[in-house]
Amino acid sequence: QENYFSRETLDRLSGKRSDAAWLEAKQRDPDTVYLLFSNRSPMATVTKDTSGDGADVKLCRFRYNAVKDLLQKPATVLVFLGAERTKNPPSSTTSSSSSQTEQDTPDTPVWFAINSDEDAAELLKRCENSSCFFPKTPNRDLLRLDEEEAGVVAQARSVLAWHDRYSFCPTCGSPTSLQEGGHKRSCLNPDCRSLKGVHNTCYPRVDPVVIMLVIHPDGNQCLLGRKSIFPARMFSCLAGFVEPGETIEEAVRREVEEESGVKVGPVQYVSCQPWPMPSSLMIGCHAIATSTDIKVDEDEIEDAQWFPRQQVVDSMFRGAHQTLVIPPRQTIAHQLIRHWIGINSNL
Amino acid sequence: QENYFSRETLDRLSGKRSDAAWLEAKQRDPDTVYLLFSNRSPMATVTKDTSGDGADVKLCRFRYNAVKDLLQKPATVLVFLGAERTKNPPSSTTSSSSSQTEQDTPDTPVWFAINSDEDAAELLKRCENSSCFFPKTPNRDLLRLDEEEAGVVAQARSVLAWHDRYSFCPTCGSPTSLQEGGHKRSCLNPDCRSLKGVHNTCYPRVDPVVIMLVIHPDGNQCLLGRKSIFPARMFSCLAGFVEPGETIEEAVRREVEEESGVKVGPVQYVSCQPWPMPSSLMIGCHAIATSTDIKVDEDEIEDAQWFPRQQVVDSMFRGAHQTLVIPPRQTIAHQLIRHWIGINSNL
Ligand SMILES: Nc1ncnc2c1ncn2[C@@H]1O[C@H](COP(=O)(O)O)[C@@H](O)[C@H]1O
Ligand SMILES: Nc1ncnc2c1ncn2[C@@H]1O[C@H](COP(=O)(O)O)[C@@H](O)[C@H]1O
Ligand SMILES: [Mg+2]
Ligand SMILES: [Mg+2]
Ligand SMILES: [Mg+2]
Ligand SMILES: [Mg+2]
Ligand SMILES: [Mg+2]
Ligand SMILES: [Mg+2]
Ligand SMILES: [Zn+2]
Ligand SMILES: [Zn+2]
Repeated sequence: QENYFSRETLDRLSGKRSDAAWLEAKQRDPDTVYLLFSNRSPMATVTKDTSGDGADVKLCRFRYNAVKDLLQKPATVLVFLGAERTKNPPSSTTSSSSSQTEQDTPDTPVWFAINSDEDAAELLKRCENSSCFFPKTPNRDLLRLDEEEAGVVAQARSVLAWHDRYSFCPTCGSPTSLQEGGHKRSCLNPDCRSLKGVHNTCYPRVDPVVIMLVIHPDGNQCLLGRKSIFPARMFSCLAGFVEPGETIEEAVRREVEEESGVKVGPVQYVSCQPWPMPSSLMIGCHAIATSTDIKVDEDEIEDAQWFPRQQVVDSMFRGAHQTLVIPPRQTIAHQLIRHWIGINSNL
Repeated sequence: QENYFSRETLDRLSGKRSDAAWLEAKQRDPDTVYLLFSNRSPMATVTKDTSGDGADVKLCRFRYNAVKDLLQKPATVLVFLGAERTKNPPSSTTSSSSSQTEQDTPDTPVWFAINSDEDAAELLKRCENSSCFFPKTPNRDLLRLDEEEAGVVAQARSVLAWHDRYSFCPTCGSPTSLQEGGHKRSCLNPDCRSLKGVHNTCYPRVDPVVIMLVIHPDGNQCLLGRKSIFPARMFSCLAGFVEPGETIEEAVRREVEEESGVKVGPVQYVSCQPWPMPSSLMIGCHAIATSTDIKVDEDEIEDAQWFPRQQVVDSMFRGAHQTLVIPPRQTIAHQLIRHWIGINSNL
């Protein structure tokens, strides 16, 4: 099973990030693809949904000539995203001659993300397509991409969000400069101790979050909660940030008890999803409750309830006229629920 | 299976972090336990290993009177760690009266970590025990605690490491102040946009890392690598930071290919481990290789080899006279290897 935002469309070629000459040559390469971001939202256009799965937003792609002026501006942030994967790699399971590390420069087009602080309306004029826009509600609009593009946006948006919030050195407060194709920031204060050794202050942040479907001891109900900002009747899985010094399993137990008062025993990892709002790694689990009384933490959620399997099935397959609305298929919450209803009852 | 650093000895009581009056009263409580850190290492003493598992280091515990002067110093960092769990909670699976959220103030002792910048030799004089010390090589000395204390150190050291490196606001470069029992830092610049909304800049950082035992397609060999800093003959699992916009499974595939040239197919999550050096979450996986030729990335590792199961078994059970040395049992690498040799061959 693959979650939305999870497709690794590009080969990140992380070894190339420190090769400034290679990166510069690739910037000028006419085959190179640029995605243009404003406030960390990618320029996109609404299309006809040909796939039938609701993917009706497409990223606008630019060539070097269309963005080279932006590359000169000091406030522009440029991030190297990687190279397109070869569709039919010369396959062979034991010969090393096919490995990318040997052919150290793949010949496929590379992609960059550019974030510009120029006026968004002016930026939009750069695109031939008149229907293009910068998504204002990323939580909704960025779920309308196809899987391939969603995977690229997951990387680009997370890294750009980090640049946006981490332009000063947290260790000494000085300004920092971009390095390694936009995957590192280094302090400009030559005396800063962040320059000695390797420290996470220089690298993009990824926040691990646990998200869990808690299953009733009877195996036939699940615990879902709603935040006050959710659309009417929508309930979803509980979730929370993994804290320092904590395991995934313990974070599941702590967050469920904090938010709902329910105690949890066994925890089972199911799958994960990058969630670039701004830069989380959603770690999806199933968990078996060992208590059932609910006491909602009203600071965080508005309501939490046990829902019978049949009601969840109806909500998933009978659409919007139901008493319960679950999150859309692009969310890992949806996939955790779907996975559960596919499992026999009384597990 | 429980990994070292994973025991959740204390109930974090995260809801109490914002209750300044409660925290202050607990600071003065004579039952409260303080751990004293210098440079993020806890004061500890060497004891006789009574358990037989090599746990011969014990944390020094202090009472309020012994540290209250330190609490007044501006450079002291104080972190609320939580309350001891009641050994025999009034158990009942459905009655909510036993839940901690209802009895909102548990009566067990609470624990704090203090990091002081005073001279370490002076700090050591505060302890009656003359054999106490501040571990200079945390990677080794902090593996000599018992499971209970290791769990507390995992939390304390990760949070203290964050305070050490993140005392300036990364969004505007201004100084920040500690809040919420040492679990939050807020920017002191009233115009800073980090004060609007909720942002990860204010919260401790946890870095997800994948660590994986890669299994040969024949099921009877595993891939281990060594860094040049390792002790002689030691090989361990490959590992690497999860990047923004990446899943756990994809990070496993990318890091293995980057470091060893080996391609990986199926990935299976096994267990995880907080690693407070400074603040990683090690996500342990088994992975099945789909290619076998090794091409080492010499920037990161010195060597990588396929090791037959029997050689790994000998190394684990026959001790130090072997040609291969694997990491100690406190590491998740050890546990991933042990888990694999417990699995039948040709899986
Ligand atoms: N990395 C983080 N980013 C944002 N909020 C965080 C983070 N870590 C802890 N928090 C806090 O966690 C709350 C959300 O709760 P939860 O997602 O259930 O852990 C936020 O309102 C913050 O107070
Ligand atoms: N959060 C981080 N902390 C430290 N190093 C990082 C981090 N993220 C990326 N790196 C880089 O990753 C290298 C270690 O490689 P790996 O652990 O295999 O990903 C370090 O030398 C850094 O260049
Ligand atoms: Mg939550
Ligand atoms: Mg939380
Ligand atoms: Mg929560
Ligand atoms: Mg590595
Ligand atoms: Mg890496
Ligand atoms: Mg690596
Ligand atoms: Zn600095
Ligand atoms: Zn600020």
